[in-house]
Amino acid sequence: MGIQVKNIAVLGSTGSIGRQTLEVISSFPERFRVIGLAAGENTALLGKQIANFKPRFAHYNKKEDKLLVADVETISPAEMASHPDVDIVVIALPGGAGLEPVISAVKAGKKVALANKESLVTAGEIITKLAGESGAKILPVDSEHSAVWQCLEGEATKASRIILTASGGPFRNYLKEELEKVTPEQALKHPSWKMGKKVTIDSATLLNKGLEIIEAHWLFDMPYDKISVIVHPQSIIHSMVEFADGAVKAQLSLPDMRLPIQYALTYPERLVNNKLPRIIWEELDRLDFEPPDTDKFPCLKLAREAGERGGTYPAVLCGAGEAAVELFLSHKIKFTGIPKLVEMALNKHNAVARPDIEEIKAAEKWAGEIVTDYTARGGVC
Amino acid sequence: MGIQVKNIAVLGSTGSIGRQTLEVISSFPERFRVIGLAAGENTALLGKQIANFKPRFAHYNKKEDKLLVADVETISPAEMASHPDVDIVVIALPGGAGLEPVISAVKAGKKVALANKESLVTAGEIITKLAGESGAKILPVDSEHSAVWQCLEGEATKASRIILTASGGPFRNYLKEELEKVTPEQALKHPSWKMGKKVTIDSATLLNKGLEIIEAHWLFDMPYDKISVIVHPQSIIHSMVEFADGAVKAQLSLPDMRLPIQYALTYPERLVNNKLPRIIWEELDRLDFEPPDTDKFPCLKLAREAGERGGTYPAVLCGAGEAAVELFLSHKIKFTGIPKLVEMALNKHNAVARPDIEEIKAAEKWAGEIVTDYTARGGVC
Repeated sequence: MGIQVKNIAVLGSTGSIGRQTLEVISSFPERFRVIGLAAGENTALLGKQIANFKPRFAHYNKKEDKLLVADVETISPAEMASHPDVDIVVIALPGGAGLEPVISAVKAGKKVALANKESLVTAGEIITKLAGESGAKILPVDSEHSAVWQCLEGEATKASRIILTASGGPFRNYLKEELEKVTPEQALKHPSWKMGKKVTIDSATLLNKGLEIIEAHWLFDMPYDKISVIVHPQSIIHSMVEFADGAVKAQLSLPDMRLPIQYALTYPERLVNNKLPRIIWEELDRLDFEPPDTDKFPCLKLAREAGERGGTYPAVLCGAGEAAVELFLSHKIKFTGIPKLVEMALNKHNAVARPDIEEIKAAEKWAGEIVTDYTARGGVC
Repeated sequence: MGIQVKNIAVLGSTGSIGRQTLEVISSFPERFRVIGLAAGENTALLGKQIANFKPRFAHYNKKEDKLLVADVETISPAEMASHPDVDIVVIALPGGAGLEPVISAVKAGKKVALANKESLVTAGEIITKLAGESGAKILPVDSEHSAVWQCLEGEATKASRIILTASGGPFRNYLKEELEKVTPEQALKHPSWKMGKKVTIDSATLLNKGLEIIEAHWLFDMPYDKISVIVHPQSIIHSMVEFADGAVKAQLSLPDMRLPIQYALTYPERLVNNKLPRIIWEELDRLDFEPPDTDKFPCLKLAREAGERGGTYPAVLCGAGEAAVELFLSHKIKFTGIPKLVEMALNKHNAVARPDIEEIKAAEKWAGEIVTDYTARGGVC
């Protein structure tokens, strides 16, 4: 039986998820072909990736650079995402940059391996509606949502609850006053996951888990009050699903993003990949759990509320969060300033109830600006 | 949409699993009807069950008793198990008594909710072959195998490993020399499960987990070296399945046999049942794991070896185990005598390679006799 080679476009190929996606693809040359690569500013790495994978399409932001590779057609990420020859679009672009390609891929009915949280958080209603119309499939590339997806597979009855696990980040056991003194260098050391900078800081504030609540709401059509978060420091159980009869399914594995990436690419099959780590059963000792502390980590609560309110609130959450993290990373605000600025933006926002894409983008931009302005004007957080 | 009422025969209705099965059935009168009840000696309870559920068929062993109920046709368990009007046969008869009804139900192509371990352990090859021919479905009613079954549902690729969890029993932390002094009363107190006497003692010796390895081998067509056992004292994770890509799925719930019973009856659906307990996520604290100690609990190793050797060895394991547990319960041997007698029987056995049902029954009987004889002749264990 012949295997159909799948053409994959990797948008955001030079970031953490993009690089790991190419690593997974390299393990299965008989299954996958890289048809397109899109990156931002890291043209040095993109050039190497193009030389290695020989895609038909490429995209990069740096106008002045010329990649040292011929035979590659330069098209926009949105064009790549909807190109008829593309089978799977991996969207690993950061923040707001993911939104347009996601919309484009979903409209074209593609399989969308989605690693960009913000698109679904800010425009979940639009994206899921478009996917319903076009038949596009959103395949989550995120350890938590991939876990939920795996646990739901084959179930005839809708889930009754989703339990997202959270590592709790590096400051889980810090006192509230100790959080004031946390430096970017400390916050960038995640205890169990290697990730990009933005998501690492978001993990430390639990904003990331809050964004995941909103994502789960849209991906799995689950009411917010049926999405729980539980802190599980070992990051072995990646999330759980509870069913009508009280049975719960969990997905476990050692923390490694290549597994959810590979599952999205090979679904519904699973393939042996010796590079992926396996749990050593003889060494499994204990798995710990505790409720999250939203008093110490208010972003989790702020995100849940933004999701429940809907409209442009989640866009404000994302825009404010992104700006606040940048300010923290450049030492302009304290770690504890992040939730304060996010809360300020959400409080000041005049929301639009059922926004279109332009209104979403405007709200996100407004929130980023109000956060940056506040600090620029001497506001201390 | 109308719901088809399913006719259920409960064989072994007065035992622990039988009673819990009737409790589950009572919760869904619009779904299930009890068409037959079979019990052994407890005619008092059977009489009440007949009065309550008004089955068409009944069976009991006590020849001298007359049940105080008219309008019930007395037929054998094997006849009940294959009756054309029966949709699901629940086989909760103890030990060797389960074998003939299982064979009968499987030949008739029934859905067989199987709580009797010994039938599959001793005659797994015959039963799975017959089920393959008739289209019968064996639905495991056992928390571990139900968990594995639930984790396998919807997976396109065969599992690469099964990880059975074991509570470790009440003597998990005892020293080897302390096990010598264990009384039946102590052994009958299981830390996490309420079960019948035989299975409770088997849980304490880990023979039960050994039987489950053999069951898992036949139910899920899994080689013995791909079936692991891990001790998990809280009995929250009921078993796990590892897949080709290293992903693991686990099924969790509070320990309550009514859940796997209900799943077998409602499969592929899941139904809300407020009598079933749910995990309180805010209270989940930790899950512990450790490798089993086969030096302290040799029955686990003996059972695995009997399974690997095949033929009539598993029948000897069951026959010797049943007799040894009886001797222990009547204070004739020590707790540590159980594995010694089982090992003796396995060592003395002249095995038949591909036995028929008669040869299996003969081997089981032989093993029980050799164990009882040894003690009757003054052998001390």
